[in-house]
Amino acid sequence: MLLSEIATKLQAQLTGDGQRDITGVNTIADAFGSELCFLTSTKHAKTLGQSAAAGVLVDKPMDDCDMPQLVVANVNAALITVLELFSPKLTAAEGVHPRAIVEPTAELDKTVAVGAGAYIGHGVRIGPGTVIGPNCSVGENTTIGSQCRLDSNVVVYHNCQIGNACIIQSNSTIGAVGFGYSFVDGQHRLIPHNGGVILEDGVEIGSNSCVDRAKFGNTVIGAGTKVDNLVQIAHNVQTGKCCLMAGHVGISGSTKVGNGVVFAGASGSSDHVEIGDGAVLGAQAVATGKIEPGQTVLGLPARDVRKELKSKSVYRNLPELAKEVKQLGKKVKKLEATKNNKN
Amino acid sequence: MLLSEIATKLQAQLTGDGQRDITGVNTIADAFGSELCFLTSTKHAKTLGQSAAAGVLVDKPMDDCDMPQLVVANVNAALITVLELFSPKLTAAEGVHPRAIVEPTAELDKTVAVGAGAYIGHGVRIGPGTVIGPNCSVGENTTIGSQCRLDSNVVVYHNCQIGNACIIQSNSTIGAVGFGYSFVDGQHRLIPHNGGVILEDGVEIGSNSCVDRAKFGNTVIGAGTKVDNLVQIAHNVQTGKCCLMAGHVGISGSTKVGNGVVFAGASGSSDHVEIGDGAVLGAQAVATGKIEPGQTVLGLPARDVRKELKSKSVYRNLPELAKEVKQLGKKVKKLEATKNNKN
Amino acid sequence: MLLSEIATKLQAQLTGDGQRDITGVNTIADAFGSELCFLTSTKHAKTLGQSAAAGVLVDKPMDDCDMPQLVVANVNAALITVLELFSPKLTAAEGVHPRAIVEPTAELDKTVAVGAGAYIGHGVRIGPGTVIGPNCSVGENTTIGSQCRLDSNVVVYHNCQIGNACIIQSNSTIGAVGFGYSFVDGQHRLIPHNGGVILEDGVEIGSNSCVDRAKFGNTVIGAGTKVDNLVQIAHNVQTGKCCLMAGHVGISGSTKVGNGVVFAGASGSSDHVEIGDGAVLGAQAVATGKIEPGQTVLGLPARDVRKELKSKSVYRNLPELAKEVKQLGKKVKKLEATKNNKN
Repeated sequence: MLLSEIATKLQAQLTGDGQRDITGVNTIADAFGSELCFLTSTKHAKTLGQSAAAGVLVDKPMDDCDMPQLVVANVNAALITVLELFSPKLTAAEGVHPRAIVEPTAELDKTVAVGAGAYIGHGVRIGPGTVIGPNCSVGENTTIGSQCRLDSNVVVYHNCQIGNACIIQSNSTIGAVGFGYSFVDGQHRLIPHNGGVILEDGVEIGSNSCVDRAKFGNTVIGAGTKVDNLVQIAHNVQTGKCCLMAGHVGISGSTKVGNGVVFAGASGSSDHVEIGDGAVLGAQAVATGKIEPGQTVLGLPARDVRKELKSKSVYRNLPELAKEVKQLGKKVKKLEATKNNKN
Repeated sequence: MLLSEIATKLQAQLTGDGQRDITGVNTIADAFGSELCFLTSTKHAKTLGQSAAAGVLVDKPMDDCDMPQLVVANVNAALITVLELFSPKLTAAEGVHPRAIVEPTAELDKTVAVGAGAYIGHGVRIGPGTVIGPNCSVGENTTIGSQCRLDSNVVVYHNCQIGNACIIQSNSTIGAVGFGYSFVDGQHRLIPHNGGVILEDGVEIGSNSCVDRAKFGNTVIGAGTKVDNLVQIAHNVQTGKCCLMAGHVGISGSTKVGNGVVFAGASGSSDHVEIGDGAVLGAQAVATGKIEPGQTVLGLPARDVRKELKSKSVYRNLPELAKEVKQLGKKVKKLEATKNNKN
Repeated sequence: MLLSEIATKLQAQLTGDGQRDITGVNTIADAFGSELCFLTSTKHAKTLGQSAAAGVLVDKPMDDCDMPQLVVANVNAALITVLELFSPKLTAAEGVHPRAIVEPTAELDKTVAVGAGAYIGHGVRIGPGTVIGPNCSVGENTTIGSQCRLDSNVVVYHNCQIGNACIIQSNSTIGAVGFGYSFVDGQHRLIPHNGGVILEDGVEIGSNSCVDRAKFGNTVIGAGTKVDNLVQIAHNVQTGKCCLMAGHVGISGSTKVGNGVVFAGASGSSDHVEIGDGAVLGAQAVATGKIEPGQTVLGLPARDVRKELKSKSVYRNLPELAKEVKQLGKKVKKLEATKNNKN
């Protein structure tokens, strides 16, 4: 595709040679010959000079830059568009594979695709354009909206509600029974989980992640929330819209998460905790009590990041502090001895 | 179902209007109109007044409570019974699905159900009433007891022994080869794992969890032990009865866990560690040495919770401590100067 | 098998009765009657006297040892050989199961085995001797080398390259889209991941682990690297050869890992970090900046293990330190009072 054609698709202002043939996109460091690169942060601007790319996406013209430039309003948005242009062409899944099993009471829109070996249970309903991968399993009476994608070997249990435009990647499990036991007569007895799971529109779940069904009501993942791999979301958790949860996050039962909350890797919460809108939990942070809206927290128990970093900073030099205290102790002892001698 | 009928089933003492029609169960806060709520802790008693529930399960009569009461000996036990009454009615799995693959040498009780796409290997034996979900895989010579449930896409490798009344939820893996390598001739060579896995009766495993097979002998999960999602149990681990392991727990190889041990989220152990009966590991705690019976521990390395909390408490105010030391240093310097001046 | 036969196979020097019939291998503590044990560390030598084993693998003759000895150059290597002799005999997978689905454009060597319910996509190529387990899914245009093993329910997405002699255990996911979003027009928009995943020769992946595909280029796992269960390797990570990653490890996007790096359980890194050859990350360590070759690190942020252990050691006695400071404070106050009184 010619650089000038890409410029047209992006409604970008083109400087330099538009006749270059572009074959893909890569980073400033790794792009070569026929690849386009992109500048999302001015701090990388100085590395552009060494780049072997055929052109660059920028949000304002760069003066001292030899390569052709595509000037766009938003590099991140333009980058997504360009990457889509160069996405590998895959064979589209179409229709219900003859080796899929669809129970007769399931209602699938005629545009739904179901892969080989997938099992669609009784009373399931699936909306237009949704693609269910090979060897998935969708439980009784679950509904899945339109334009969703369940990749191979995803399991969604019964009575769950998946909204529109949701993506669930391989080997993830939605709607398993949560970890709720009562100790009765000398044994842990499972509390029946009569509730379900609701994934609102635009929720995306990575691979090998789990969202447990609720004991009562529903576990709810708010619209536009994105969940990485190997994440555990326990029964009755409710999250707001547009949250981000990175790998190995674990959110315990009945925790309420606001809108736009960010969980960094391996962070999480105790059960029944409230986390306010826009809060950010750093890596390995564990919220054990209320987190205020907009607060950035770290540590176990999680608290304000500045306080935690100050403690951590002293911690890292604790041996020196201990030595100082020891020396002070000696000096004070000497002062006391002097005083006593004088008396 | 009428409240009076529920009272009969629970052998509960009913106070108030037994003719109310009950349609489900929910928490005190969320129950409405026709739902029953429950009081498992007296600290929530004061919130009962605001509840819109149609009745409440209690273990002793509440005087100042307007709604009908079901007084039972054990609320937790009664709650399980009531929840079972209102569990969603699902189509029962029956028989071996024509699209399941069962090797001819496998011996399945005639009451066993096997879902579409499941693979049952050579010499597998499965007891009465057990349900194997769609797209599961059960390896050669593995035995599974009676009344078990393996949900969709569970994998149990060869030569494992699953007891009676066990539940394994979706996408969990039992009996994979553990992480045991010897560095020989410049490469990591896998140590063959000739052992297996034993899940004793009543063991329940969440979704996307792993129990590795043993190098020698068996990895053993004791009767009645319950395991949450995304838990890693390494080769040759042996746990006692009735343990609880929450999400993201990781127990390293050959660790011996006593009876009734509780692992909170993301806690775990080094390899070859002994953890005594009734020990409790707090969130993110890592046992690197012996944990005494009944001990509650925290931290890395895990130690007595009181000691760890005291250290943590000082840690959280470390900047103040450092400041205090600095000021003491100045004062001591001044005292020394005074002393020197006098000499 | 006679002990003398094993000696021959190992080219071992045999001392004692070679006519004993050996039925398996076990640890010094657990071996009985007809089982062979092994001594990999001299610190266990004194326990040999209590062992009920029928013989022992050692790397030099033990004088005060009653049981027959097999003296070999390398006990670890010999142990692997012996364990292979006693590995359970399993039915070999052969050919493409009639219930497997192989797209007509896929090219499988005639020695490839594909299990029931497995799905092999368009244009996939698989080399000699590779075994694909039941209910696996291999995406379009992915190539898999020779002598590989994909256990049941493994998912490999499109356009990935699996080398020779690789093992991927059950429920692991290779090539899912990574966690890369741009916030555009009020929502998180997924950045298309046009790259793939390369597992070089001899890579072994445990169960329920994830290796995400790259945004550009490839996520690369170097030859001979071994990955445990429930490990998350993010987009564009590149690892060197012969690394080890234990359970619950999480490596964030674009991190570059050298050769022979060891990640202990639940350790990991931030994104775009460099970790030098031979570095070791202790349990729960998180590399947030460059780790030098050969460095052993601990903590969050990870730093030199000796420094971290010194801080940790003071931390564990922080209440005593705080008390000491408090007492010093009192003493200094008293000294100041004395001074003021004298003035």
